[in-house]
Amino acid sequence: MAKQRTAITPTREENYPEWYQQVVKAADLAEVSPVRGCMVIKPWGYAIWEGMQKDLDRRFKDTGHVNAYFPLFIPKSFLEKEAEHVDGFAKECAVVTHHRLEEGPDGGLVPAGELEEPLVVRPTSETIIGAMFSKWIQSYRDLPILVNQWANVVRWELRTRMFLRTTEFLWQEGHTAHATEKDARDETMQMLDVYRDFAESVMAVPVVQGRKTEGERFPGAVDTFTIEAMMQDRKALQAGTSHFLGQNFAKAQDISYQTSEGDIEHCWTTSRGVSTRLVGALIMTHSDDDGLIVPPALAPQQIVILPVLRKNADPEPVIAYCRELAAELKQIRWQDERLRVQVDERDLRGGEKTWQHIKKGVPIRLEIGPRDMENHSVFMGRRDLSPKDKSGVPRDEFVAQVGELLQEIQDGLLARAKAYRDAATVTLSSKEDFAAYFAAGQPGGFAWCFAADDPSYEPFLKSLKVTARCIPLDNNDALGDCIFTGAAGQQKILFAKSY
Amino acid sequence: MAKQRTAITPTREENYPEWYQQVVKAADLAEVSPVRGCMVIKPWGYAIWEGMQKDLDRRFKDTGHVNAYFPLFIPKSFLEKEAEHVDGFAKECAVVTHHRLEEGPDGGLVPAGELEEPLVVRPTSETIIGAMFSKWIQSYRDLPILVNQWANVVRWELRTRMFLRTTEFLWQEGHTAHATEKDARDETMQMLDVYRDFAESVMAVPVVQGRKTEGERFPGAVDTFTIEAMMQDRKALQAGTSHFLGQNFAKAQDISYQTSEGDIEHCWTTSRGVSTRLVGALIMTHSDDDGLIVPPALAPQQIVILPVLRKNADPEPVIAYCRELAAELKQIRWQDERLRVQVDERDLRGGEKTWQHIKKGVPIRLEIGPRDMENHSVFMGRRDLSPKDKSGVPRDEFVAQVGELLQEIQDGLLARAKAYRDAATVTLSSKEDFAAYFAAGQPGGFAWCFAADDPSYEPFLKSLKVTARCIPLDNNDALGDCIFTGAAGQQKILFAKSY
Repeated sequence: MAKQRTAITPTREENYPEWYQQVVKAADLAEVSPVRGCMVIKPWGYAIWEGMQKDLDRRFKDTGHVNAYFPLFIPKSFLEKEAEHVDGFAKECAVVTHHRLEEGPDGGLVPAGELEEPLVVRPTSETIIGAMFSKWIQSYRDLPILVNQWANVVRWELRTRMFLRTTEFLWQEGHTAHATEKDARDETMQMLDVYRDFAESVMAVPVVQGRKTEGERFPGAVDTFTIEAMMQDRKALQAGTSHFLGQNFAKAQDISYQTSEGDIEHCWTTSRGVSTRLVGALIMTHSDDDGLIVPPALAPQQIVILPVLRKNADPEPVIAYCRELAAELKQIRWQDERLRVQVDERDLRGGEKTWQHIKKGVPIRLEIGPRDMENHSVFMGRRDLSPKDKSGVPRDEFVAQVGELLQEIQDGLLARAKAYRDAATVTLSSKEDFAAYFAAGQPGGFAWCFAADDPSYEPFLKSLKVTARCIPLDNNDALGDCIFTGAAGQQKILFAKSY
Repeated sequence: MAKQRTAITPTREENYPEWYQQVVKAADLAEVSPVRGCMVIKPWGYAIWEGMQKDLDRRFKDTGHVNAYFPLFIPKSFLEKEAEHVDGFAKECAVVTHHRLEEGPDGGLVPAGELEEPLVVRPTSETIIGAMFSKWIQSYRDLPILVNQWANVVRWELRTRMFLRTTEFLWQEGHTAHATEKDARDETMQMLDVYRDFAESVMAVPVVQGRKTEGERFPGAVDTFTIEAMMQDRKALQAGTSHFLGQNFAKAQDISYQTSEGDIEHCWTTSRGVSTRLVGALIMTHSDDDGLIVPPALAPQQIVILPVLRKNADPEPVIAYCRELAAELKQIRWQDERLRVQVDERDLRGGEKTWQHIKKGVPIRLEIGPRDMENHSVFMGRRDLSPKDKSGVPRDEFVAQVGELLQEIQDGLLARAKAYRDAATVTLSSKEDFAAYFAAGQPGGFAWCFAADDPSYEPFLKSLKVTARCIPLDNNDALGDCIFTGAAGQQKILFAKSY
């Protein structure tokens, strides 16, 4: 059988990393910039991020969080306050040392105005926000403080990949302070669950919720919780983290309060974040060899209407008909928002136009020509089905059922991703099976194994390029002997190769 | 007569700059951060900025612009491409020279990993966005490109003041490329008018639209247009600018396209921006000696309901009644958005609570106690009126008319600001009158004068601490002799002291 032509070359099977780059390009999501490690997020990619922001921001506000904004720069001495924290970030931070450029000896501009204390471009904001918390919090009446910041952060990465790992990226970071350990732990788990629900119901990305092992914790955290998703190369991607910081930062930065009894206590703090990395997760979960697939809840355009124009015929009646349909559709609400509908009136060959929208992942395409007008029907293509799988639908039936259809597509993408992940998930009960499962050349996947949270077998994991992703929170009550160390009474840990 | 007590000390009349800082503090809008020149935008201040963003973003999208995101860092060589541009920004930019911190000889961390080419933290993004335009634009079919970015920028300021002038600030920057001069000029003016309409109808800040004189232009622009507002100390504040860049950046960065005839031409580009400075403009236009006044269109809470609780009485019925009213009000739409209503249930003295909301500028306060419940009425205070000017209103009448009332407050604030400005605006016809009007100790204000766009009399302006704000676009057809140089046939220029 002849190989089927695809819009993306290479296919996922041929070369997954290169396929990813080609989808990013074909869907016009982003491109490399002239600044090392930084990307330009193009309008279609940015609109997907805006959709994520809008939904997450509502969830944060619904759980009592308020937005604020803190400085981009962090004085070096602040970063140094928490020992593990600075160890984690000092190796990869952009350092501002001067505050102007002036003409140098050879005529070019050189840095001048050296700063007394270097400033670091924030890699994360625990220390600068903690310094403010320390000022803002006096009494138990001031607690809890629940703030969120939408911002850019910089971590100097050597190997970068668009959306997944870039020197500068966009994210939200939540920071909270509480009177008790319980309150802070509850917040940590509540927000992890907000991330989980967002990933599943909006991104249609199924995730495993779990606690990070000791070696994978956020620098300075007591506990880091994560949501882990499986990409189509069976690797794991950490999609969001929620940290219980205990009193580590509170002690380092003197964030304390007076209790109702008049005692002075340190606060308990948390932090958490998701970033533009989620766009990478979205791409790698749903897309296929014809390009991007965007779940309807995040699609910048949910429906594109393509007028089919005959040569030498007056295009106006068809275009007017399409605009009228678009206007009607835009009045419909799905998931509490008006439908996002575009009529593509550009003067381009029909095939080229159609394929652009396929590659960009628009959930529903409607082709409408003079004959469809006469028949009161639309010719519909769904991005979650094959490009060839198109069918005529009565126009009014389509309008009446479009909300259901979008929900069907949304749910279908989640179910498909879940089925893919579950088929590539195993339980392994020996070190030998583990080595065989993750051996080079094997497809690998997710492996659940009884294992100790213990760094002693990390070299073994490293030799297989595998990491402990998390100690899952759900369906993880059984205890057994660690398959690596033999230690008794261990929970299962989820292992995988990862991004 | 005894001096009336005010919530803000000093009053505007006593010490305007200090009054401003005290309003920022009393309304909990922002505070200085431990990072030189950078502020922390607190939740109430940030929510006002979010309101501005939301409205502006819709206006940008309605005029065909799309959001994208470009790198924070600009290579030094990019900034150097346009000569005037680099001159304008090199003196005040944060320079990144290293990409990690490592342990130094005395044990502390020192910058390490020196960059081959220093990076500048963007003071504005013409050069990095231009570099991308140069790649993206091949043919006339690619034009126009209309992008917008919401971002942080850094300009190293020596004297900073919250919102008005800070080292880091938040803004939007629009950047466009066009095939013809006319298209680029039309875009420049269209977006200036978007700013004007936003300032007037949303911020309730009246503005003068005009062209900047030569000395006040954006570095690298052919023409800069501005909207200028008057603050309550009669000084001007530049609230937004829209730049026609001609082909300056297109030539410096080779942004060119093939015409439909096959010729290669340089593009015509524009840029523009408004920033968190608008929050400063808002404060200084409307606020009074009791604190902030926020126009309803931008108020994070438009209505606060204050349950009036009697000692030793069950608070539940009153609180339930207030919540029910809030729920009903939240269903009402005004200016296409649901009303933003809060019930302040905190356990605080009534007077303290009320004054907090006055200082924060909430447009409408409703006090509701057991007697009001019985009478089916609410006790209403309006922030645009005196704190003492409160009145009982039937509950259902209030609900039925709340939209009209908010509009009345919104329009009233604009009318009041306009009346203030017009009363402090004069036309002057001699250099002597000019010197007298702006003499130290005089109130000053806006002065329209026939004047040449000519740097020769700048030293005279400087001696009075006055600047040319703009050559107004409207009501400026008459020509006359320059009051400074005597040159004939000149338009009027608007002069003022300024921020």
